[in-house]
Formats: sequence, C-alpha cells, structure tokens
Amino acid sequence: MAPQGARTGPRSARFGADEMNLKHILETAFAFRASKVLLTAVELGVFTSLADGSQTAGALAGALGLQGRGAGDFFDALVALGFLDRDDNGLYANTVASSAYLDFGSTEYIGDLIEYLDGRVYPTWNFLAQALREGAPQRGPAASGGFGTFYKDRDAFDLFLKGMSGGSRLAGRALAKQFPWQSYNTVIDVGSAQGCVAVELAKAHRHLRGGGFDLKELRDPFESYVRSCGFNDRLKFFSGNFFADPLPTADVLILGRILHDWSVPQRELLLRKAHAALSDKGALIVYEAFIDESRRKPGGLLSSLNMLLQTSDGAEFTTHECRAWMQDAGFVSMHVIPLTDNHAAVVGTKGPVAA
Amino acid sequence: MAPQGARTGPRSARFGADEMNLKHILETAFAFRASKVLLTAVELGVFTSLADGSQTAGALAGALGLQGRGAGDFFDALVALGFLDRDDNGLYANTVASSAYLDFGSTEYIGDLIEYLDGRVYPTWNFLAQALREGAPQRGPAASGGFGTFYKDRDAFDLFLKGMSGGSRLAGRALAKQFPWQSYNTVIDVGSAQGCVAVELAKAHRHLRGGGFDLKELRDPFESYVRSCGFNDRLKFFSGNFFADPLPTADVLILGRILHDWSVPQRELLLRKAHAALSDKGALIVYEAFIDESRRKPGGLLSSLNMLLQTSDGAEFTTHECRAWMQDAGFVSMHVIPLTDNHAAVVGTKGPVAA
Repeated sequence: MAPQGARTGPRSARFGADEMNLKHILETAFAFRASKVLLTAVELGVFTSLADGSQTAGALAGALGLQGRGAGDFFDALVALGFLDRDDNGLYANTVASSAYLDFGSTEYIGDLIEYLDGRVYPTWNFLAQALREGAPQRGPAASGGFGTFYKDRDAFDLFLKGMSGGSRLAGRALAKQFPWQSYNTVIDVGSAQGCVAVELAKAHRHLRGGGFDLKELRDPFESYVRSCGFNDRLKFFSGNFFADPLPTADVLILGRILHDWSVPQRELLLRKAHAALSDKGALIVYEAFIDESRRKPGGLLSSLNMLLQTSDGAEFTTHECRAWMQDAGFVSMHVIPLTDNHAAVVGTKGPVAA
Repeated sequence: MAPQGARTGPRSARFGADEMNLKHILETAFAFRASKVLLTAVELGVFTSLADGSQTAGALAGALGLQGRGAGDFFDALVALGFLDRDDNGLYANTVASSAYLDFGSTEYIGDLIEYLDGRVYPTWNFLAQALREGAPQRGPAASGGFGTFYKDRDAFDLFLKGMSGGSRLAGRALAKQFPWQSYNTVIDVGSAQGCVAVELAKAHRHLRGGGFDLKELRDPFESYVRSCGFNDRLKFFSGNFFADPLPTADVLILGRILHDWSVPQRELLLRKAHAALSDKGALIVYEAFIDESRRKPGGLLSSLNMLLQTSDGAEFTTHECRAWMQDAGFVSMHVIPLTDNHAAVVGTKGPVAA
C-alpha cells in the first residue's frame, strides 16, 4: 500500500508541490469514507436485495427501508467504487464479485466479517490515540472484563462470532488446500468459536474428523453452525479453558488468530500445552496475520494495532518469533505456509517427520 | 478508485476465485485502519515532533506521551504506509511529503483538515446507515440546531474552523493561480469562516483587497487568523446572515463549499443575492467538490454523503446543475475552472464580458 516514490521526491519538494505525495496523504486521510460506504451497504443488505435482479434506485431504497435522501448518491458511490453496476436505464445490479462475496445467499459470502468490521472494528479504531496513550484496550473482550463477561452481551457476542467466522473462513479454505491432510485423521481447532475453520477442512477432506475446543459459552454457537453446514457427525465441540484445562488430543491442532490475543508467556504456555496434547506424529498449525520480518508492510502491523485496541497484552508478531517460541516448546521441522494475502501459517511437528 | 477489471471478470468467477475483486473488497473494507493511523499520527503530533530530526521509537513515544505498548507497531505502520522513513539504526524521520504537509511548522501544513477528519468526520461516518434510513443529519451544525447554536460549543467550533480552513486552503491556492485576478480589484469570500481563501488570494495578488462575509460569531476567528497572516490591512470582516441580509458588494464574490450546505431553493436565493451584490463588471466563483456528470467517480459522491451526514438539506451537485442555477439567477459566460483533485469552480459574470 505504500506508494511508489513516496520517499524519492526531490528535496526541493519540501517547499513546492509534491503532488503525488499530497494525493497519497489526502487519499489515505479520506479512505475511511469508501470503507464505510461498503460496510454500510452490507449492513443495509444492498447486495442481498439485488440477488434476484437489478432494481432502480427508488425500488432499491424502498426495499432497504431508506428514507430516500442521499440514497442515489450512496448507490452511485457503490458504482464508482466498483461494487455495483448501473446500466443506461438507471438499473443497479451486483457486480460479479459482489454477487460472489457480499450476497448473503452465496456460498462465498464474507459479509459476516464485514458486519463485524462495521459494527465493532470501525468505531473501536476511533480510539486509537487513546489506546496508544494508555497502552490499554478500548473495546472488546479485554476492555469488557474478559471473554466470559464479554459473551454475556448477546449482541456483542453474535457480532464477535460473525467476525471470527468471517475473518477465518478464507484462511481455513486456504489451509484446506495447502496442508497435507491425507497424512492425518483428526484435527481440533483450539479457540474455534463457531467452528468455521473445522467446517472448511471437513468440507474439503472427507476422511477428517475432530472439532473445536473453546469456552463453554461457544457450545451452542458451534453446534448450531456445524449442524447447519451438515458436519455434526464428524465435528464435535470440546469445552474448556485453554489456560486452566488440558487441550484435547488430535493428530493436528490448530491455533488460529489465538496467540495474538495474549502475552508472550501465555503464548509459550499454549504452545507447550499443544505439544503435550498432540499425538506422537502430530502437527501444530499456527496461523496469524504475521508481521513481515522487515516491518515495512502494513498488513500485520495494522492487525497488531487492532490487538492493542481490543486486548490487554496481545499483538501480532513475525513468523521468526513464532518459530522460536515453537522450538522452545519442543516442536521440530517448522516451516511457513502462505495462506491468503493477510494470513500465513507456521507448521511444526511434535517429533521428527519420518523420511 | 474503482479497480481495473472490477466488472470484467468471467461469469464463472461467481463460483470460483475472483481474487483481484476479493482483494479490492477486503482492501476497501479495511481501508479505515490506514486512515485512522494517519489521522491519529497528526492528532498525536508525530510529524511535528520529528521536525527537528530523527528519533528512536522510544524517544518518540516519550515525546508524544505514549505509554509504549503498540507504539513501535504504530510508527512502523506509518513507515509501511509511506508517511515516515526508518533507517537501519531504527531512527524514524519525516518523509519529504510529511515534512511539507503534516509538520505544524510548515507553510504547506494541511494538518488542520486532518484534525477535523479525525475528530469529527470519521466518527460521524459511523452513522451512515442511520443517516440513510432517516434521511437526516447525525452530527454537525444541522444536527445541533443550526450554525449559531453549534458555534456555542467552543471545542466543536474550533475543530470546525480547522476543517473549513484546512479543507479550503488548497482550493484557495489553486484559485489564486487559475483566475484572472489582474482584471479585478476587490474580492469577498461569502461564508468565509476564518478567511483562509481570502488570505491565499491576498498572498498571491498584492493589489487585491476585500475580505470575508460570515455570521458574527466568525469575526474574532477571522480577524485573528487574518492578522496572524499579516493581511489585516487589506482583508476586512463583514458580519451578516446571508439569508437575512444583503451581501456586500465587490468585483468578485466567492461561494466556496457553501451551496452544498443548503436546499436547491436556498442555493438559488444565494445566487440571486450574489448577482445583485456584484459590481457591474463583477464575477461570481462557486467552488465545490462537484459530482462528475456521469456519476461514476467517487470524489463528489462521497462528499455528498458527508453533506447527508452533517446537514439537513445539503448535497453535492454537478457543474451542469450549478450553471443552470447561475443562469436562472442572471449570470452569463459561465465556465468551469479545475482547481484540485477534489474541487473545481464554476465562474459566471454579472453581465457580458467586454471583448
């Protein structure tokens, strides 16, 4: 996302028109508006409403319960940003990508992630200055007295579950393709939330069985989600607190976007517990929005600021740091698997892999 | 901002990996984070703190009063986004563009605009869905009982003034270059706020005299700003309500980002009053973030949604609409002058221009 030439302007630009860089500053400063237009479109159900065919601005505003003022500008902004098409008759339609990813009825839907960004993450980021001044979370589980307390707020809990599933699905799908699942029979996702990742793995590999491990509050959401996907025969819920209780045994354990919630000693503890719980030929998969080793790419760094805003001790980290912690916990044969633009996995095995 | 190929993917992408478009969706959905990092950096004074030389992360965090946790990620995110440099010794420095535009001591500073985006606009956009459902403003002057009432809140008033000056300065500077000022002697900016545009014109054209017209609450901010720039001999404040009172007479009147606050009949009234007030050979300059005629570019459309969020009847409009209203008000010889990436002006004269 850093512009080409951001640091190569002539020194004289200090006193003149450094137009490209001014443009980059202004585009970045105003970029939240495009975000919020997209997030709001998902919140209002624009793409789901257009699933059955194109509509005029008036009909679409009516279907969405909009008062009308600003609605035309809103729909045209979605056209301008590439999320809707508009034909010469003024009929609005989903683009190919909007149909695939933003229509609630699509199997590729990622709108649950977007609802979470809209309802929780965007407003939480308004407190970034305060979080940096205090070094403390401003919203979310940690600012609300821990996951157990946080989960008592039903709306917040539901939104959080959507965020966790929507934010893991693409990584889960990539993981289904990029890991040698044929060598393993059982898998348990530790800190599974609704079980989205386990479902993606079960979908792609019919021999896999296992499930998810999480706090007892997640049993109902897990079982209901897994049943709705048709995998309740192969995926079970294991209830527990991963600091207080032993982890369940499986051939593969997954810690996905879990370590980033906690302090380094807590991460090391979880890795030791995973090592202890794995079957002898087992493997651990840790996936995260890792910070690049050079600390010059925005992805992991921005995710890490999200951890500052939402947790007491969490942060993102590099694959190098992760490998070192895994090695200390006893893992061997560590290697990195790229997953999505934002996520990668570090894999390690409990013991040496047979040649 | 619409991606190339947003609407040209194969139909089969409906069921497969339309990676570029998924990437565009995710980048847009998450873009508010980069915005808020930049806005927060200005709020905290990062670029001003680095004006005297590079600093380590620890020293910079200390100078800014940050607790420390997350500070390194924050500074590195600014590096990744192109707003800071970091050398091999871990010293952080302003980029050329950051020095020019984001250091409070620079003559090119636009941080006042960014403070306004940070403190008012970003949080207001969180209510976009509600604004569309209600067709009503959520924050700002209109939601607070009008400009007069709104201005009683000192902090909100100060922030608003920063936004108005920061948001007009670049347009004012362009206007100083792009209009034949040598043919005119006096100029009054109608709805001048602090007088930022008049100052930019006076800076560039030593023969120009005039000032700003605005509500009486703006007298002190105007006179103080103009004095601080050294133009109090040439630029005066004219107090009044542009709906209730006649406009002052000048060779050139400017209505910059004013018409977009009001309904179409109110815009037409203001244009008629401007026509009446102008000297016989006078000209009117209307500048706005116009919506492009095709309604397929995001700039004007997103600005228009900001008007939905902050005014009762305001919206952006096209230059074509503006010319038609000006013609009805008696103006002739209308033409468009491009100003910045976001702003353009429509100019009209009171009577025919002499050959």
